[in-house]
Amino acid sequence: MITSSTDIEVRYAETDMMGIAHHASYLPWLEIARGNLLKERGISYAKLEESGIMLPVVEIKMNYRRPATYDDIVTINSVIKERPFAKIQIDYELQKEDQIIADGYSVHAFINQSGQPIKAPRIIKETLAKEFD
Amino acid sequence: MITSSTDIEVRYAETDMMGIAHHASYLPWLEIARGNLLKERGISYAKLEESGIMLPVVEIKMNYRRPATYDDIVTINSVIKERPFAKIQIDYELQKEDQIIADGYSVHAFINQSGQPIKAPRIIKETLAKEFD
Amino acid sequence: MITSSTDIEVRYAETDMMGIAHHASYLPWLEIARGNLLKERGISYAKLEESGIMLPVVEIKMNYRRPATYDDIVTINSVIKERPFAKIQIDYELQKEDQIIADGYSVHAFINQSGQPIKAPRIIKETLAKEFD
Amino acid sequence: MITSSTDIEVRYAETDMMGIAHHASYLPWLEIARGNLLKERGISYAKLEESGIMLPVVEIKMNYRRPATYDDIVTINSVIKERPFAKIQIDYELQKEDQIIADGYSVHAFINQSGQPIKAPRIIKETLAKEFD
Repeated sequence: MITSSTDIEVRYAETDMMGIAHHASYLPWLEIARGNLLKERGISYAKLEESGIMLPVVEIKMNYRRPATYDDIVTINSVIKERPFAKIQIDYELQKEDQIIADGYSVHAFINQSGQPIKAPRIIKETLAKEFD
Repeated sequence: MITSSTDIEVRYAETDMMGIAHHASYLPWLEIARGNLLKERGISYAKLEESGIMLPVVEIKMNYRRPATYDDIVTINSVIKERPFAKIQIDYELQKEDQIIADGYSVHAFINQSGQPIKAPRIIKETLAKEFD
Repeated sequence: MITSSTDIEVRYAETDMMGIAHHASYLPWLEIARGNLLKERGISYAKLEESGIMLPVVEIKMNYRRPATYDDIVTINSVIKERPFAKIQIDYELQKEDQIIADGYSVHAFINQSGQPIKAPRIIKETLAKEFD
Repeated sequence: MITSSTDIEVRYAETDMMGIAHHASYLPWLEIARGNLLKERGISYAKLEESGIMLPVVEIKMNYRRPATYDDIVTINSVIKERPFAKIQIDYELQKEDQIIADGYSVHAFINQSGQPIKAPRIIKETLAKEFD
């Protein structure tokens, strides 16, 4: 299992008139969390894209259990539970003061610059493989 | 079954460096779509909130099948398939030039101003009931 | 003078915990307004970009005079007052129920795909020239 | 003069199809920067709002000089140059690797919960006064 933890501070611009972080604001947080998960293993998503490999989101699922609001610190725990082949799934658990406020997952395909699906690139497979053994 | 259709024009600000609409941009589109679904039945979400009833998103699921990009017209077909009780689910299908590019659903709770869950308010139950009979 | 008018409906996601449209939400509205101004004259900004010409924002100024909130219709009147050379300026006036709620302007440079500044492309100069004469 | 410095990491969701951070993305960054400026002086903007005092943006000006892109670290230097009375102005300079990439300012009014303009609240005046003497 591959894990990572990222802290987010809820921005004022992310709140809505209900007084809480808007549900769409959570998706960019997850994006930061999985970027950090890769970065901690020496993989820069920015460089992956420069080399012509992209990981678009093909599926997303979120459960919103408790609200977050402006200035809250939200801790996002990300986990990769299975070796990636054609796709990669990342699971997320979001906590605020030790309470789970949301959870969910994202699934990503690997595509090249012409938008064609490709297999998981070697750098991802090899880097992650170490932690699955 | 209760249905509604809403056209969205993809904004430049909604694209990302992959050249396509960012996956988080879709969630505000769904919000417009379900706002219209209610509005077409005489229910203003703005007035619901003024009267102290809120419908926060408690669950969201999206499948992204094909990209959308700047200036694309995306048609969102929204459907309520079951009478709402403690929660309400709306299903969405997003089309671009007659191709389904994404689908998914959102689930909403009914809460009052103190954040307590309540049953579906009468105006929603009665208005929607007509179409379920 | 070159003018155009665009109606925007304030999205729920664009509000913040003050209960009003967040000030950053206005910038994508202006982007839609100037896209329409060009489109009404037969110029597609999407196609301009495909042909390698981009108009990044180099300056923006906004005065927020009265709030807008969810479901409000905001009318954006856009004006080009001077022929574009190295840059183009668009002025905006935002109205809600005949009251001016905001105004401002954006200035854009013309750049090519390598990010180098270029002069206003012929299609823009010629199309706009007709209306300045 | 009152100064503060905040680092921002450009989010993927903040980029657009030009491959750079969208100009509207900068405004939430400034919001974080001025929130930190106050926080470093013991003033919580969240608590100010809870006590019924709000500082809506009434004016914003930005010059975009060089692009920022995904994963870039942008340092925002914020300055209050004049004692606030009915309004408060904050100036910003944004740097990336020691180059200024943007600058601008925001002006804020002080309002109470009924939206009426008020004078700068005592906590702001007194806290900032120390640094102006």
